[in-house]
This record gives sequence, structure tokens and C-alpha cells, in this order.
Amino acid sequence: MVRIADVAELAGVSKATASRALSGRDHVAEATRKRVVEAAESLQYAPSTAAVGLATGRTRRIGVLMPTVSRWFFSQVLEGVQAALVKHGLDLMLYCALPGTPARERIFRDFMRRKRMDGLIAIGIESSDPEWERLRQIDAPIVGVVGTTPGSSLVAIDDTHAAMRATEHLLALGHREVVFLGGEARDPGAANVHRDRFTGYTRAMTAAGLGASVRHVPAPSTVPGGYAAAVDALGSQDRPTGIVGVCDEVAIGAIIAARRLGLLVPGHVSVTGIDDHEYAEMFSLTTLSQKPRAQGRAAVDLLLARIEDPSLAPSTTSLKARLIVRSSTLALDASVAAPGTRDGSHGP
Amino acid sequence: MVRIADVAELAGVSKATASRALSGRDHVAEATRKRVVEAAESLQYAPSTAAVGLATGRTRRIGVLMPTVSRWFFSQVLEGVQAALVKHGLDLMLYCALPGTPARERIFRDFMRRKRMDGLIAIGIESSDPEWERLRQIDAPIVGVVGTTPGSSLVAIDDTHAAMRATEHLLALGHREVVFLGGEARDPGAANVHRDRFTGYTRAMTAAGLGASVRHVPAPSTVPGGYAAAVDALGSQDRPTGIVGVCDEVAIGAIIAARRLGLLVPGHVSVTGIDDHEYAEMFSLTTLSQKPRAQGRAAVDLLLARIEDPSLAPSTTSLKARLIVRSSTLALDASVAAPGTRDGSHGP
Repeated sequence: MVRIADVAELAGVSKATASRALSGRDHVAEATRKRVVEAAESLQYAPSTAAVGLATGRTRRIGVLMPTVSRWFFSQVLEGVQAALVKHGLDLMLYCALPGTPARERIFRDFMRRKRMDGLIAIGIESSDPEWERLRQIDAPIVGVVGTTPGSSLVAIDDTHAAMRATEHLLALGHREVVFLGGEARDPGAANVHRDRFTGYTRAMTAAGLGASVRHVPAPSTVPGGYAAAVDALGSQDRPTGIVGVCDEVAIGAIIAARRLGLLVPGHVSVTGIDDHEYAEMFSLTTLSQKPRAQGRAAVDLLLARIEDPSLAPSTTSLKARLIVRSSTLALDASVAAPGTRDGSHGP
Repeated sequence: MVRIADVAELAGVSKATASRALSGRDHVAEATRKRVVEAAESLQYAPSTAAVGLATGRTRRIGVLMPTVSRWFFSQVLEGVQAALVKHGLDLMLYCALPGTPARERIFRDFMRRKRMDGLIAIGIESSDPEWERLRQIDAPIVGVVGTTPGSSLVAIDDTHAAMRATEHLLALGHREVVFLGGEARDPGAANVHRDRFTGYTRAMTAAGLGASVRHVPAPSTVPGGYAAAVDALGSQDRPTGIVGVCDEVAIGAIIAARRLGLLVPGHVSVTGIDDHEYAEMFSLTTLSQKPRAQGRAAVDLLLARIEDPSLAPSTTSLKARLIVRSSTLALDASVAAPGTRDGSHGP
């Protein structure tokens, strides 16, 4: 079996330098690193991470726990986390499981143990959730992304503020019949987020004297979810002229539904989202832009700082969502009357 | 420090049984497992995976290498792999990096080493790719998903056949001007897949005596990619009446583009996909259905078999794609003339 000493000898460096160069843990001059890696490759040296772990007490692995990878926001956060961990030479252990599934239960019961990982990034686990208590027992640093996580560091946008801005944008355009579309209690990993966004919408409506017109059409926060809910909302007698989508996927579903119903966006109905999803531009969607990849990177920074210094107080990194006005929104007095509205007039 | 012997004593079982119950490696009666887990929890026992690894020579970790998690197919395969690994009590180490990025280079150089993982599932690494040679050097079992992987086991659908079936469906409806939309050489992790699908389309066209009408409009295989390419193809003088999308995302982009151009789907243009994406039903998309989650599960089965018995010959699991006819396709003689077509007539 090839040992680190053999690699060091061939590369003409000390064992400590060879070890540092291969672990990527500390700085080694690029030329030296290259020489060591070449020596290791020519000797087919495979360092035993198990042995490294026993020696240092570190696993060099970070756990990432999330409800799903198949929604845009979650996939983007994950890719941001991955990119940052690769830079630090750390492995990413993924635990992806929808709430309420046997896999979820098994992950919490069997996998969330301290010595598997040096720290955990928990995406979409909310403070009200009893699962947080179970996570605390792993006794390793945890950083949350999305939701509220007392006692742990957190990366998030101000969801209340983002939805308030989206609603205010529609109100400033003269819209009065504005519904909040999407979000429901059983949304995996985002129930608090959706509650905060609904609060932001309600605040903006109330501040404009429209508290009595507050209206929530709940739906799964997906494109098909937004589509189905919008078919109902836009097909009803009291059709709104403005829709605040809980996220871009719901807003895009609403735009697709409107077009299928023969309604113009923004001519008959104005729609806003929150995200700046990769499809937002294609649908000319006015939205509050957030950067989930940056949230993933920020979570890694917070986590590594706490691993280095466990006495560090938990902190919150609040990222700003920025309004991007595209052409899914239009001033009410520039809008055309939709077919079948209450005044009986018909659009083009 | 709490040892396994303490847990065994409290649970009233042997050390071997306690170890088996906690590792999930072998069968243990459910009542026994529960007693051991409760004992471990009350003692706050955390097994050292490093020590376990040194003792058994196994890491209990499986690597998953893929170009991206933010495309539907890849995210679904990943969730299928995750669910299967959790059942076996195995950790998933994710290596997600787009080809051509520094992260990709770093992952191949520093992370693909045998003793980090017991085996690797490589999604979207193709046989022609020099990266395959580098992967072979990790000297652990590898199973591929998507593409061709000589010397390793593979899970895939027959891409040539799937595209042939989609094209034949349009030809049987009487369409003659049928283009192939999407797919290009730089598509991350799917260039061979797209080449095979184009081959299937070409074969069906040629068999119908339409070899001279073969037409490829390349585009990134995403919804916005399909949208942009379809705007070009449908806005041109020689507008096709049928579109074979390289995948559902491209086909859906084409439907969105057609509607924006004022064309009816399927009234003016028929569109097919390959996937059965979660949006397919919302767009009434006729498609060839594949089950990427099942492909992920099958990859885990193949990999674990090879880890148990490394002498096992590589095998290929070819899954069938099934035609699902929805209403994005229509017989040519039932179609309406599109506005601005060469005969000068106008649709509704």
C-alpha cells in the first residue's frame, strides 16, 4: 500500500506539506501542490479519509438537508452551497426528503448524527417545527436557509417586505382588486415563508385602505398549482385586475392560465412574482429578485465560521429582494376591459 | 464517551446486534432495532463513522456526479437515487458541476478518489468524454445514467427509439413538414442523448420518404431555449406543421412561443416532447414518458450489486419510453390554416 511518505519522497517535500497539498485544507504554493498531486497520481495514492477523520476529529463533510431538489429555489441554493464547498475542499452530503415521507423520518432518525458531518445547512426547516429540536441534538453547527431558526444562524430575504413591495407596485398602478395567489400550510419547507409573504400583501392592502378586499387563493407553490388557482380566480365573477403570486412559479402559472382564458397580460390582468426565476424574462414577469445561489454561498460562509469558532453567536444574513419591472404589470387606466367583466364591455 | 457496548448493555442485546441495528446494514427485527435506537438516544451515543470505515473498509457513502440539479430530468434522477440510498442506510455525496467550470475541474482532480466513497453514480458523463477515463481511475464500481458508458453498467431509455416514435406519431397524423427542435453539442451531460434522438427523428423521416425535409433547429434544451428557437422556426416563411422537441422543456417552450405568435396548438402546429415533465399535463403535451426517478433507483440497485460482487459483469438496464397522446397533436387534415401561410388563407 502506498503511504503519504512515499508521495512526499517522490515530490521532494515533507510529509506535512504533502498531506496539506492533498487535503486542500491549508495554503500550499500552486507549483508544490501540482508536484504533490502528480506524485500521488503516478503512485496511485488514495488517502484514507477515515484515517484523516480519526486523526483530526473532522469529517471534512457538510450535510445539506432540504425537502426537495426539484423546485427552482431549492435547486439554486443547493448549487450555490455545492460551489462554495468545492472551493473549500469539503464534501457535500445530501439529505433530500419531502416532509411526511418515510424517507424523511428515516433521515431524522438514522442519518442526523454528529460524527457524519462537521456541520449542517438546513433548508426549509422552520422554527415552529419539532424537527428543529431533533436537529439541535446532533450537537454540530447548523445554519438555516429560509424560515426562522432561533439559536442558529440564518440566511433569508425579508419575505414580508418583498410581498409588500410587489403589492405596493400594483396599488401604485391604480389596481384595487388585487388577490394573493398561492401558498398553503402544507407547502414543503416554505409554510412560514408563505405566511410572511401573505402578511406583507395584507399590510400593503390595509395601508391603502383596502383591508376589506384582502383575498387569498391558496394553491401549491408550483407552476401547475398557480395555473389551476388562476383558472378559478380569473374565471370567477369578481375577477381581479391584479395578482400577487407567492413566487414566480405561481405567477407564471397565472400568466399561462390567463392566456388560455383569452385574457391579455398585462392588458386585462397584471401579475407580479417573487424570485426572478430563470423563466421570468421569457414571461416578461415583474418580480422581486432574490439570489438563491448567493444565499447558498452565504450559508456556507456562516457555517464554516461557526465550525472554526463554535463560541460565535448565531447571526442572521438578510438579503434584499430588488423590484424588477417588466411588462406583466400595467397601470389600471391603461388596461383594457376584459371580456365578460361586470360592466359588460369587451376587450379586443 | 459512550461506547457501543454501553448501548448494547442497556438494550439487552449483543454488541454485534446493536451495531447492526444502528448501521442499518443488515436485517434486525423491528422491535429489537427500536430498543437499540432508544438506548442509543437515551445515552446520546454517536457512532464514529470514521472508526466504522477503518474497521470495515467501507465508507457507507455513494458519490453522485452530475452536471446540474436545476433541470427536471437531473433533479428527478437525484431524488430517485436519494430515496433508494436512504432505504439502504447509505449517505449520498453530491458532486454537481457544469462541464467547463473550475468547480468541475476541481471535483475531478481532488474529489474523485476511491476511499471517499464505495461507488459512484455518474449522470450525464458520456463514453466519448475523456472524463470517463479519469473516473475509471478511482477504481470503484461506477454506474452511468444517460449516455453510453462502456465497461460500466448503464441505466437509460432507448433515445433513438423514443424520438422515432414521436416523429412517427406526427407522420401518421399526416404531417410532412416536421422539424426537430433543440439539442446542441454543448448541452451539459446530454450531447449523446440529443444526437441519438436526432438520429431517431431522421430515421423516421427517411423511412417515410422525407429524407430531404429533415431539418434541425438547434437550441439549449430548456424552456427558454425551446421558446427562442420556436419563435425563429414558426416565424419563418417555411413554417413547419409539426415540431419534435428534443425533450419536454423544449416542446413546452415551443408551445408558449406558438401561442405568443398567435398560433393555435394543435390547430396550426402540432408539438411532441420526450419526458412527461411535471408541466406536460398543463400544456396538454403529447410525449414519450420516461421515469427518471425509477432510473435513479435502478442505478442504485446495479451499483450495490457490483459493490457486493465486483466480479459482476457490467449490464445495461434499458427502460421503455411510452407514448402518451394528449392534445398538442392533431391530424393535418383537421388542422386549420395558420395566419400568413403560403396559401394566403387565415385561421380563426
